[in-house]
Amino acid sequence: MSERTPDPVIVAPATPPGVSALAIIRLSGQDCIHLVQRVFVGKNLEDQPSHTLHLGLIKEGDDSIDEVVVSVFKAPNSFTKENSIEISCHGSPLIVQRIITALLKQGAQLAGPGEFTKRAFLNGRFDLAQAEAVADLINSETDNARQAALNQMRGGFSKEIQKLREELIHFASLIELELDFGEEDVEFAKRDDLRKLINRMQGFLRVLIASFQQGNVIKNGVATVIAGKPNAGKSTLLNLLLNEEKAIVSDIPGTTRDVIEDEMILGGINFRFIDTAGLRETTDTIEAIGVGRTKEQLKKAALVLYLVDLSNTNTAEIQNELRQLEDITVPVIKIGNKVDKADPSLLSEVKQQGFVCISATQKTNFKQLEEVILSKFQLNHAKQGDVIITNLRHYENLRQTDEALSRVLHGMDNGVTGDFLAMDVRQALHYLGLITGEISSDDLLENIFSRFCIGK
Amino acid sequence: MSERTPDPVIVAPATPPGVSALAIIRLSGQDCIHLVQRVFVGKNLEDQPSHTLHLGLIKEGDDSIDEVVVSVFKAPNSFTKENSIEISCHGSPLIVQRIITALLKQGAQLAGPGEFTKRAFLNGRFDLAQAEAVADLINSETDNARQAALNQMRGGFSKEIQKLREELIHFASLIELELDFGEEDVEFAKRDDLRKLINRMQGFLRVLIASFQQGNVIKNGVATVIAGKPNAGKSTLLNLLLNEEKAIVSDIPGTTRDVIEDEMILGGINFRFIDTAGLRETTDTIEAIGVGRTKEQLKKAALVLYLVDLSNTNTAEIQNELRQLEDITVPVIKIGNKVDKADPSLLSEVKQQGFVCISATQKTNFKQLEEVILSKFQLNHAKQGDVIITNLRHYENLRQTDEALSRVLHGMDNGVTGDFLAMDVRQALHYLGLITGEISSDDLLENIFSRFCIGK
Repeated sequence: MSERTPDPVIVAPATPPGVSALAIIRLSGQDCIHLVQRVFVGKNLEDQPSHTLHLGLIKEGDDSIDEVVVSVFKAPNSFTKENSIEISCHGSPLIVQRIITALLKQGAQLAGPGEFTKRAFLNGRFDLAQAEAVADLINSETDNARQAALNQMRGGFSKEIQKLREELIHFASLIELELDFGEEDVEFAKRDDLRKLINRMQGFLRVLIASFQQGNVIKNGVATVIAGKPNAGKSTLLNLLLNEEKAIVSDIPGTTRDVIEDEMILGGINFRFIDTAGLRETTDTIEAIGVGRTKEQLKKAALVLYLVDLSNTNTAEIQNELRQLEDITVPVIKIGNKVDKADPSLLSEVKQQGFVCISATQKTNFKQLEEVILSKFQLNHAKQGDVIITNLRHYENLRQTDEALSRVLHGMDNGVTGDFLAMDVRQALHYLGLITGEISSDDLLENIFSRFCIGK
Repeated sequence: MSERTPDPVIVAPATPPGVSALAIIRLSGQDCIHLVQRVFVGKNLEDQPSHTLHLGLIKEGDDSIDEVVVSVFKAPNSFTKENSIEISCHGSPLIVQRIITALLKQGAQLAGPGEFTKRAFLNGRFDLAQAEAVADLINSETDNARQAALNQMRGGFSKEIQKLREELIHFASLIELELDFGEEDVEFAKRDDLRKLINRMQGFLRVLIASFQQGNVIKNGVATVIAGKPNAGKSTLLNLLLNEEKAIVSDIPGTTRDVIEDEMILGGINFRFIDTAGLRETTDTIEAIGVGRTKEQLKKAALVLYLVDLSNTNTAEIQNELRQLEDITVPVIKIGNKVDKADPSLLSEVKQQGFVCISATQKTNFKQLEEVILSKFQLNHAKQGDVIITNLRHYENLRQTDEALSRVLHGMDNGVTGDFLAMDVRQALHYLGLITGEISSDDLLENIFSRFCIGK
């Protein structure tokens, strides 16, 4: 890091707004302990060791705002590697507002989204991929997503990438040294060693790249559309699917509020039902799938559950409906509903066509349906600590690195000159550096950290 | 406190649900440090001094749930006076749920509402009035309410009441000693001293009792109904009143979400507009005030803003409307709207009748209206630290104490026997004791703490 003037003290609420037992207000910056002291009645905080807690009053002039507990973290032993303070006050939005206002008056600045984590990155606490994992961890909605994010935050592939990048830098400088010798036919960078390194790197990178398909499902879930004619039982099925999950989530008070109604977690994967309002509207007016807005909905889907009412249809109609599913490229699960009222010959026919036959109202064969859904998105049972790429940015950069390395190999096979090799090696280094943030731009950082929440 | 077996370890989220930078999970109970250690990978927490912070991992079996910072508070230096732990994890509802589930598996119990504060009370950290103030502090929506609650939480009238109660207990025991001597005419409790004490007590109690009118406005706000014929401009006025406040609240990100649309704070008082849906529905169909549901709404009001459209009415109609306001006992502010379109003679007439004349759309005379509203509920400018009773339970018990003391005085004036005096003294002691919780029942505690939030 180049030398910088000390960053200003930033402050932000770190807990969600709302009435609760506690709320946390967070500050970071070299001067923050001194700054808090000016509104704190209690011990002299600057004299206290790092990682200690102190009861006191926050005052603004004569007005006692709240009785608080202050946590002191001293540089470099804090999240940001700067002096940091956390103020634990009573969980009233009014009190949080009053305390923050008092701190702003003392010269603190309101932190932008992700600004604490950005400082942690800039101060070298972790690399960019790790910093990004902090946001993923906070936003994780399934255990798989949480594990992948925690793993990445705690190092994940970062160390390995940095090590490989250093080895490649070694070769890059040798190749560039060759260029300095111009016409002379020297070869500082042993081509065989470079080839071996690239093979090793590609072996590593390609495992990561391959993990993204799974990682994407883990992080972003599976966009699911339930389609079918009116009265096929779509809403009943949706409610049935959603209810199964809700019971699991609701045994801890306070978490239910955050569960989005139209998601369900099955086998550790988040199945998101696309815009129910649109879906319902669409499916109400749908006579033939593949028309207008339905097509739009299906474009966004990663999975289609297509529902047919077995009690009120015949073979020809079903064939007609199914024809319109032909140009869908994502997995389609064909479901025959109202199995209890189905004609036996129709039933055996659709079963042969791969239908899962259920009764949504009577919950018949619901377990089987779940298994079929899961089979389409089975997570390979990753071992604890396996690295999985969940971030599209990392995936793209890994792919670009891999391609640049392939060009280096190809170049060597075809005996291209050192300056061409050097160019592709530099490209590979560039993309690797973008992942871990060895190479970064203000725009990139802005783009990444603006998606964080305030206070992180 | 009588001797009790050690309370079980309780656990609860202490911050609101939602995605955020941090979330806090709180535990209390003699065994809680040991219990957390079983899922914590890091230092040995039992060896750490009180009021220290420790980075580590929460694990369940092989699964790392999150990287956390643990605060250790050792008995009796904690909120509950028991060993306590606060776990600061990433602000994800999923992570909070996973950690709490892991702790429940280790034998912790989910805390009920207010259970931490109840333990603090039962362990003698503060008296019942102070414990109640904790909930008031969290729920405070104005600075006045916050100040009153903080003051009460930090001691307020508690010490004085306890002191007076002890003095009265002294007299009670002397009087009861007299009773033991039966027929003999002894007088251990000097009647003059008792009279002086009661005078002193009543002087103190009556200041508190008198403060309740103000305290109730501070704590509960002023229920306000805007009434008037359709198209008088009620909604415009409501929006105008509400907008003035919103700008103030919204300069700290994250607090706005909690501002209830139908409240405004004026001069430190919370004016709550009664159920707008009902109000709007009512006022749409209202032709004559004082009918049906409107009457119901007005019953709940502590203030009525009655709006007349000056551009579209005449003297006779106004008189007719006003007649129907006659049986309203709470303050009514008569407002003439659309003053810019009013006939000059009508205008001067209604001004004589005490109307505040405004234009809600053009904001004419809005300031004057605010002043009139405030004049009806002016807070006496209490000095910092002045004790104000905001709690109906305290108010009722103070009144009962005062009445019992008056009966003692009356009894002495009329020379009643010691046993009758003793009865009334005991009554006074009983009601005083209920305030501070020297006397309490499970029902009373249940009733008080069930209104707290989880985690407090």
